[in-house]
Amino acid sequence: MTNTGLQLRSTVKKEGVLELSLVQVATAEPKADEVVVRVDAAPINPSDLGLLFGGADMSTATASGSASSPVVNAKIAANMMRAMAGRVDQSLPVGNEGAGVVVAAGASESAQNLVGRTVAVFGGAMYSQYRVIKTSNCLPLPPGTSAAEGAACFVNPLTALGMVETMKLEGHNALVHTAAASNLGQMLIKLCIEDQVGLVNIVRKPEHVKLLKSIGATYVCDSSAPTFMDDLTNALVSTGATLAFDAIGGGRLASQILTCMEVAANKTAKEYSRYGSTTHKQVYIYGGLDRGPTELTRSFGMVWGIGGWLLTPFLQKIGPDASRKLRERVAAEVKTTFASTYTKEVSLAEALQLGEIAVYGKQATGQKYLINPNKRLQ
Amino acid sequence: MTNTGLQLRSTVKKEGVLELSLVQVATAEPKADEVVVRVDAAPINPSDLGLLFGGADMSTATASGSASSPVVNAKIAANMMRAMAGRVDQSLPVGNEGAGVVVAAGASESAQNLVGRTVAVFGGAMYSQYRVIKTSNCLPLPPGTSAAEGAACFVNPLTALGMVETMKLEGHNALVHTAAASNLGQMLIKLCIEDQVGLVNIVRKPEHVKLLKSIGATYVCDSSAPTFMDDLTNALVSTGATLAFDAIGGGRLASQILTCMEVAANKTAKEYSRYGSTTHKQVYIYGGLDRGPTELTRSFGMVWGIGGWLLTPFLQKIGPDASRKLRERVAAEVKTTFASTYTKEVSLAEALQLGEIAVYGKQATGQKYLINPNKRLQ
Repeated sequence: MTNTGLQLRSTVKKEGVLELSLVQVATAEPKADEVVVRVDAAPINPSDLGLLFGGADMSTATASGSASSPVVNAKIAANMMRAMAGRVDQSLPVGNEGAGVVVAAGASESAQNLVGRTVAVFGGAMYSQYRVIKTSNCLPLPPGTSAAEGAACFVNPLTALGMVETMKLEGHNALVHTAAASNLGQMLIKLCIEDQVGLVNIVRKPEHVKLLKSIGATYVCDSSAPTFMDDLTNALVSTGATLAFDAIGGGRLASQILTCMEVAANKTAKEYSRYGSTTHKQVYIYGGLDRGPTELTRSFGMVWGIGGWLLTPFLQKIGPDASRKLRERVAAEVKTTFASTYTKEVSLAEALQLGEIAVYGKQATGQKYLINPNKRLQ
Repeated sequence: MTNTGLQLRSTVKKEGVLELSLVQVATAEPKADEVVVRVDAAPINPSDLGLLFGGADMSTATASGSASSPVVNAKIAANMMRAMAGRVDQSLPVGNEGAGVVVAAGASESAQNLVGRTVAVFGGAMYSQYRVIKTSNCLPLPPGTSAAEGAACFVNPLTALGMVETMKLEGHNALVHTAAASNLGQMLIKLCIEDQVGLVNIVRKPEHVKLLKSIGATYVCDSSAPTFMDDLTNALVSTGATLAFDAIGGGRLASQILTCMEVAANKTAKEYSRYGSTTHKQVYIYGGLDRGPTELTRSFGMVWGIGGWLLTPFLQKIGPDASRKLRERVAAEVKTTFASTYTKEVSLAEALQLGEIAVYGKQATGQKYLINPNKRLQ
């Protein structure tokens, strides 16, 4: 291995401009409890795009630099800059998760034991050729599992598991999920079938109804259909779902879900309650496919909540033991329940091509990218 | 006393029309643990208007009937009718709270002890000449307290106390309150001074800044000022408030509050957190002065929540002992901390005059009505 490696960086400049580039960084000597992972696969998840794009309008992106050392710039609107205050003029590495081979290790036994193993890693800065990381952030993959197969062991699988666990913790009986045709959505369908959890899937295109039914989904509602509100209400009555996880964020969908939950709750209520049903209706926004404002009509009584939902605070809440159990389940089912599929593998430099950004930045269903930071560099 | 009395009724008709009218209802014989209260004062609180107006557009209101038996009709938009499904074609009594003299009582000692006493009552249907109610819903007022002085012992005082209690229960250190020039807002200012709780008041007019400062408020931010976002952020930094109670509901104010809370939180954060600050920021919507949609820009990280807040579920949550303590505090301070003022006293028939509806329906600051259901009828 070399002493340096390429790393993808994202910088929000104080003048309201995003800069994406590659830098050569020195690979630090691993401490006793650390290993050096040669990263062979790291997915571009929707949850990476916030840090990567820094709130920039990527339709304004321009390219400069060379093919092997590209630079991308894009404009950031003034109202988005407010939220970026904490990261202005800092060159930040990107990439929540990935997998690769341990090529060097610190002195401890647990580190040495990982040498040569393919491990999944959760810890940021994974869009790097080499990542020095604590052994506790590594999940050794079962023999015969490739880096690509194990690259997405954390974000989507733990998010899907986290949704089901949140449902149980907060006393709901079934789930609603939006953008349900996504990689995560399909994973959640498999998980809910396995765990016998009622699930109402909301998609935005008629062809996705077919897709999800073909993998076993019972309830799939198309938000583009004129009968959407009735379809959703009926599915909510059937499942009793009062908790939704929404990846879209913007627009009226969260509000529509709450409205239909309220109608469903009132269908079973015995008498009129002046402030609406007494059933708590909750939507957690965990993504922002639509970055426009969320619009709530509030035509759903007074017993409701909307909030942000993030994996890390959730894992902190349930504690290390419960988190470990979830991770072990993911490792055991990485090729079945928690398998991911990708449409394209790109190098770090290719990930900064405007044409590629236009595709993965759209976060369209069936367009999932995998970065191989060592592609053509080994 | 007579065997019947007038009662104000609100009906949402299936064809999308609201009807307000007065009906003569028989006064039931009180059971052992009940009393008959001659209602001499019942406030029109913002929280009464939802049930009263049934989601109707009151600018379409028309009057018919006679001066002593008026009938008001108004149109209800189709999207509001969805939320009204549970009350269609039911003639519902209105009025959360009020006060009056106990004129008859059931056989029990606790009921008999109240005869002749002036009591505050929480229990609905208070826009009635006579209200038969359980003794447990009555709060005997200290001697020398009039019905008008004790008419608003529950909704506003317990809501103000409930805000402070919610702050403590959910681990926040200070409060934000919108529409802070309201009767409730002024009460909350007095309460927070007494209890030494940090309070950021948001008003919509410059003259209200003066008004609230004159009664002792430290932080008053005018949302109509060009410096509003900065003013609010500074007040949030000073107080550390991460919980807001919003009476407005519609528009961008809740979103602005969360945005400023996020900026305030990041000002004290040590390093950039990619999903925004880890401080939980919460807005509870407890009113709907602006019935338009709530618009959330979501430029405030991922650790936030918005939800409905209602007094009754809150009191159920804290339990009967804690609730009783709050009520006893209200009775003790009904002429000081929890005093209300009214601009007009109207009879039941006057409350249904279009000119009066136009005034109290606006919920403008300093325009608070008191209904005296026995005005000119005794």
